[in-house]
Amino acid sequence: MERALASVDRGLDPERVEELYLATLGFSGWQLGNSSAIAVEELGRPGLPSVRVENACASGGYALRMAVDAVASGRRDLVLVVGVEKMTDVSNARRRYWLGVSGDTEWERLAGLTFAGVYGLMAARYAAEYGPVREALSEVAVKNHANGALNPNAHFQKGVSREQATNAPTVAAPLGLYDCCPVSDGAAALLVAAPSVAHEYTDSPVYVVGSGAGSDALAIQARASMTRIDASRRAADEAFRRAPFDRKQVQLLEVHDCFTIAELLALEDLGMTPRGTAGRLTLSGATRIGGRLPVNPDGGLKAKGHPIGATGVSQAYEVFLQLRGQAGARQVGGAERALTHNVGGSGASAAVHLFSVSAT
Amino acid sequence: MERALASVDRGLDPERVEELYLATLGFSGWQLGNSSAIAVEELGRPGLPSVRVENACASGGYALRMAVDAVASGRRDLVLVVGVEKMTDVSNARRRYWLGVSGDTEWERLAGLTFAGVYGLMAARYAAEYGPVREALSEVAVKNHANGALNPNAHFQKGVSREQATNAPTVAAPLGLYDCCPVSDGAAALLVAAPSVAHEYTDSPVYVVGSGAGSDALAIQARASMTRIDASRRAADEAFRRAPFDRKQVQLLEVHDCFTIAELLALEDLGMTPRGTAGRLTLSGATRIGGRLPVNPDGGLKAKGHPIGATGVSQAYEVFLQLRGQAGARQVGGAERALTHNVGGSGASAAVHLFSVSAT
Repeated sequence: MERALASVDRGLDPERVEELYLATLGFSGWQLGNSSAIAVEELGRPGLPSVRVENACASGGYALRMAVDAVASGRRDLVLVVGVEKMTDVSNARRRYWLGVSGDTEWERLAGLTFAGVYGLMAARYAAEYGPVREALSEVAVKNHANGALNPNAHFQKGVSREQATNAPTVAAPLGLYDCCPVSDGAAALLVAAPSVAHEYTDSPVYVVGSGAGSDALAIQARASMTRIDASRRAADEAFRRAPFDRKQVQLLEVHDCFTIAELLALEDLGMTPRGTAGRLTLSGATRIGGRLPVNPDGGLKAKGHPIGATGVSQAYEVFLQLRGQAGARQVGGAERALTHNVGGSGASAAVHLFSVSAT
Repeated sequence: MERALASVDRGLDPERVEELYLATLGFSGWQLGNSSAIAVEELGRPGLPSVRVENACASGGYALRMAVDAVASGRRDLVLVVGVEKMTDVSNARRRYWLGVSGDTEWERLAGLTFAGVYGLMAARYAAEYGPVREALSEVAVKNHANGALNPNAHFQKGVSREQATNAPTVAAPLGLYDCCPVSDGAAALLVAAPSVAHEYTDSPVYVVGSGAGSDALAIQARASMTRIDASRRAADEAFRRAPFDRKQVQLLEVHDCFTIAELLALEDLGMTPRGTAGRLTLSGATRIGGRLPVNPDGGLKAKGHPIGATGVSQAYEVFLQLRGQAGARQVGGAERALTHNVGGSGASAAVHLFSVSAT
């Protein structure tokens, strides 16, 4: 939070922050309920209104959505969005439970199906419908590890080769070790301001020009397809409905690649490429930094890490850096319009936001 | 939810609902994360955007606040707010843990301090500062039980006498059995609509004309006073700042009486009566139905029950009935302006809303 407050180009009095939106699953067992009050204490603003927003792995995207509403409604001029997760201070068994409660309980968790298992099923079905996908999955891992190596805040800052990714130990077939995001601790924060206020603090704000959300059944068995996440499509449809640019004009994406297959699905669900073609697009190099449609320049969930509540917030943070030309070694040249995509569970919810360097 | 959708005066197509805000602590152990997706499934609208809002016992009030923002921002015209808690399907020991995680962990829960204990400390300190309070606490119980007896949806629908309340077994001194709200299952739902849309469905909408929120330290030891809940005062200050009426014009209150002392504190924190005088006001009969300032005509948390996530939503439901003259045997005559007050934990957060039969 302190770094977010210090990130403005001209000094910001923390007392001007009017409300705090906290995204967290809170599964470290430390403070499971009422945790937004703790965030306020940490900020040293004991009276500040605060609220916790929880939609599993999409908590961050939804917290941003609520914050944007608060400003757009005229109720607030300057609010803080914080996403945080401390995942490494509990045992593996306990963590599996706490993660599991964000998936379906009856049909998935109690039957022993983990998130890797659900995405493994999706990947297998995707291959059955569209042909071999292993090389494309590995290329997602290679690309995101390469990007993460350029990001000093990434969990993994080292590359992997196509061979390493392809021949890695199986986690949930066909997904291997390098197809899965790690267990990470992390936090991210954003300041969301009315345009007039933003201009007090910077001459180069990043505008949120679209917000969309969508849902679907919690259990994958109840969904229309295993090779789509319809919640993502619905969220994108809403975000683009009133946006000042269309899908073709997006220059940079941060998508929810909790597993490599999820990045391929996202590109199709968001309407960036036709069904069944995301693998080919990826293998062409188009989604690398320097390609025609860079995806996850910060390393994505795969390499940057996936501290649940923080993820959706950190996606917007990456876009903020990129659109201001402050992304250093991983800078995407000339990016002015970007999209973030954050998924809850295995697709029960999704939030999509659109960003631009200009308000219209 | 079905009853809320059917409550409009002219038929409502459920397909018109654009987003769902779910308030729940979710401590039944059944679906702890991602529960907003379950609510959407229950509604039979699989694509509907939904989000969970959690601020402990104030979850409902904050969910309403987010919903009002979504409509006021122009993003949505018609949204649904649902509060729900299933509290009776886990053992007492397990429930104590799940409730406890909404209080401070280090200084309160792990030291063995329960919510009854915290409010007991507040009551003892209140008596030390302002004089004997036992009779006033009992009168809160008597009044709210009498009101609950008039509410077919109340958990307790029977009266208690001043003697019963005063001589009840001690729970956490000085609080006795009738000073404590029960463990209840329950749910409540609200439709929040833009005025133009509301008028399609009814000629007598209830307007939300103020929304405020405030916070404080999670642990009572870190707060400025034990005889105030400053979060409530802050929330009320914000709610009244832009409201079309002032404190003196409020005709009806739904306040967060999780324990009887909390109703007295609320009346003072909200600025309805000077510090130290809420007991006298209560003993005068002013807060009864028919008094000059009726408080908790639905029975309050004390008698209606306190299904955590549902409570803040059900307070607004009661105001909806009262302001439309539909509250039956417990109708407050001529009420046109009302306030709801919802507290999280023992005062770490509070949400206040103002309602009116007219928009201005």
